[in-house]
Amino acid sequence: TIDGPRLNEDIAFTSRFGATPRGGIRRLALSAEDRLVRDWLAAQGAALGCSLTVDTMGNQFLRLEGSDPTLPPLMMGSHLDTQPTGGRYDGIYGVLGGLAVLRALRAAGYVPRHSIELANWTNEEGARFAPAMTASGVFSGVFTLEKAYGLADRDGVRLGDALLAIGYKGDEPCGAHPLAAYFELHIEQGPVLENEGKTIGVVTGVQGMRWFDVTLIGQEAHAGTTPMELRRDALLAAARLMVMAAEVAAAHGPDAKTTIGIIDASPGSRNVVPGEVRMTLDLRHPDDAVIDAMESDFRAQAAAIAGKAAIELSIEESWGSPSVPFDPACVSMVRDAARKAGLSHRDIISGAGHDAAYMARICPTAMIFIPCRDGLSHNEAEYAAPDDIVAGANVLMRAIMAADEH
Amino acid sequence: TIDGPRLNEDIAFTSRFGATPRGGIRRLALSAEDRLVRDWLAAQGAALGCSLTVDTMGNQFLRLEGSDPTLPPLMMGSHLDTQPTGGRYDGIYGVLGGLAVLRALRAAGYVPRHSIELANWTNEEGARFAPAMTASGVFSGVFTLEKAYGLADRDGVRLGDALLAIGYKGDEPCGAHPLAAYFELHIEQGPVLENEGKTIGVVTGVQGMRWFDVTLIGQEAHAGTTPMELRRDALLAAARLMVMAAEVAAAHGPDAKTTIGIIDASPGSRNVVPGEVRMTLDLRHPDDAVIDAMESDFRAQAAAIAGKAAIELSIEESWGSPSVPFDPACVSMVRDAARKAGLSHRDIISGAGHDAAYMARICPTAMIFIPCRDGLSHNEAEYAAPDDIVAGANVLMRAIMAADEH
Ligand SMILES: NC(=O)NCCC(=O)O
Ligand SMILES: NC(=O)NCCC(=O)O
Repeated sequence: TIDGPRLNEDIAFTSRFGATPRGGIRRLALSAEDRLVRDWLAAQGAALGCSLTVDTMGNQFLRLEGSDPTLPPLMMGSHLDTQPTGGRYDGIYGVLGGLAVLRALRAAGYVPRHSIELANWTNEEGARFAPAMTASGVFSGVFTLEKAYGLADRDGVRLGDALLAIGYKGDEPCGAHPLAAYFELHIEQGPVLENEGKTIGVVTGVQGMRWFDVTLIGQEAHAGTTPMELRRDALLAAARLMVMAAEVAAAHGPDAKTTIGIIDASPGSRNVVPGEVRMTLDLRHPDDAVIDAMESDFRAQAAAIAGKAAIELSIEESWGSPSVPFDPACVSMVRDAARKAGLSHRDIISGAGHDAAYMARICPTAMIFIPCRDGLSHNEAEYAAPDDIVAGANVLMRAIMAADEH
Repeated sequence: TIDGPRLNEDIAFTSRFGATPRGGIRRLALSAEDRLVRDWLAAQGAALGCSLTVDTMGNQFLRLEGSDPTLPPLMMGSHLDTQPTGGRYDGIYGVLGGLAVLRALRAAGYVPRHSIELANWTNEEGARFAPAMTASGVFSGVFTLEKAYGLADRDGVRLGDALLAIGYKGDEPCGAHPLAAYFELHIEQGPVLENEGKTIGVVTGVQGMRWFDVTLIGQEAHAGTTPMELRRDALLAAARLMVMAAEVAAAHGPDAKTTIGIIDASPGSRNVVPGEVRMTLDLRHPDDAVIDAMESDFRAQAAAIAGKAAIELSIEESWGSPSVPFDPACVSMVRDAARKAGLSHRDIISGAGHDAAYMARICPTAMIFIPCRDGLSHNEAEYAAPDDIVAGANVLMRAIMAADEH
């Protein structure tokens, strides 16, 4: 079984790499802090006698060798990068939980048939480089390596250069890697399990999500002299779009979500009517057809608002991930593992994107959720209970062992 | 009379200091570009045989000596700093127009009774350091020197250090300077003169203005997992405030103006519901009682919006300038000067703040406006016609000569 205290210590220890004053983590992908935690993970793998490879996207793979070299490996994984003001669990739990599984198997002298790999995926959050899940996207063939290398952060630094800068541009081609199955362990990041008092979420799939870059161009003007009715205020129009986006979500039921997370207004002076606004838009729903409807509602109403305000509008889709059903056999292995461990559980759809959503395109995949306090994530106050943490890792181990026997 | 071609050449020449690709100027107060244009102005004054003093706020004063040393000087002035994407005329015209007057008087061999000074005021725009009209504010006793030195720009650089950095922290105490009168020449920055085909605006006063810092605190949350009704989205609440601010302006008639020029949402990630927003608010009206009413309407509605969205709200007044009536005698001198020059003119209230608004507290003051194309200012496309530029400078010269004879 899992060494629970050690797993919880690892979570506390790694939270030092990028610790924030409010108890969270700021460890943007490929930052200096990210390098430190990667080096730490590599050292843990070496201590366990695992081999380590780093691929051209900077993904790290720790490998416990199986007895049958003709079988493709089983993989566990998640990510160690965080949001700018992220928590200690999002992604991190999946990697450290996987490490705890490797340790438990080693400690028990268990030699699996399949080799078992643990992946730490680069830039899952999409916070430094958009889109999210970039490196599992390259691994699974959704993005080309060239596209990923060319992504720029807000300072114009390219992902390819950032990989080099921290010494994590590896030699192993990204993706040349047939797999028997992929399992990812994660906090739910939402309120469902906590509200229902369940310990394990048996994740049956991931909802659809679509990202847009919205640009509004009006006219810079003097705040003191320009009559309201002569203004072409890009920020006022953006405000109307934001309010309207919330109404679009409300119109499509309780599962619909719309979010504006980034806004920049220029020139950014108190006494200048803003002439240009750039903002993001994130649309989500479990049903892709509803996302289509949300998108067309937003576009139609945005065009009407912009037209009335004499604002030039552009709405560019920058990324999308359709809703993903996981592999029924893998999902069953997770459900059986929870039941056999005597843990309360329920099926659940993930509201967040995960590397598993891309891995599902190339191999049988499933995920395991545990509750997090107040459903809070992408927040420094993110918290999961130590017992749930151990419970989830035990379910991951049982699911992996079930898949190995398969 | 004014050397019109030279004045227009000066405007074109000085636009090189901080020229932007779109034909405007970025010359933030106390930047390297500001230093260059200050050095140029000092050299022009020296060539004319004017003395130059620089005070502890970095204000430059060129002085043409009068025949009667017992009389306090007359002053002309404006500013050479610009908005981040400013035009070639705002402020600049008043300084270079004053320089043209000094040149014309010199060329004609005219020796005034009063000494005549030309001021270049530091940080009028309020774009780099808020509030606006900082240095004329210190000069006129509205702000202390300590307060002004302590103002920080968005990078945390303090005004006092920025003065030192460009070598413009002078020795002359700021404000120890009795004056007979102050005249400021400026583009209108609004549409009135152009619409009515008038060449000269006889400015009778400046409307009231009030600046606020608005902070909204909600809760950072995951964009994919947090149901809309559980969110405390600081940016969505800010959007509702922005729309409401425009409604407040509409409710107080055509002279009321509300502007949000700066907005910052954190943490600034596409898939994070913003937990904190900071934005500015600029309220204006010619009648201070109406500004009071606008402020209380905004506060009441903002509190209601924030309360409903479980957002912590703070609205801090950071600066205000009550409406200012100019000196009737000085205003008459401007009106007479326009009439004698045979120029079409009308009385007008300034929608923009000007150093003259603070100077009016310590000496008889008036202003002269000329039209600008499409009423556009605080915009790189700002434009005034060469003939109007010369006409305005001639009115300034006649007004100064009238005051000198007074
Ligand atoms: N798990 C997680 O927070 N992923 C980030 C991608 C997203 O869902 O926005
Ligand atoms: N003239 C001018 O644009 N001054 C800036 C101060 C203001 O009116 O906002």
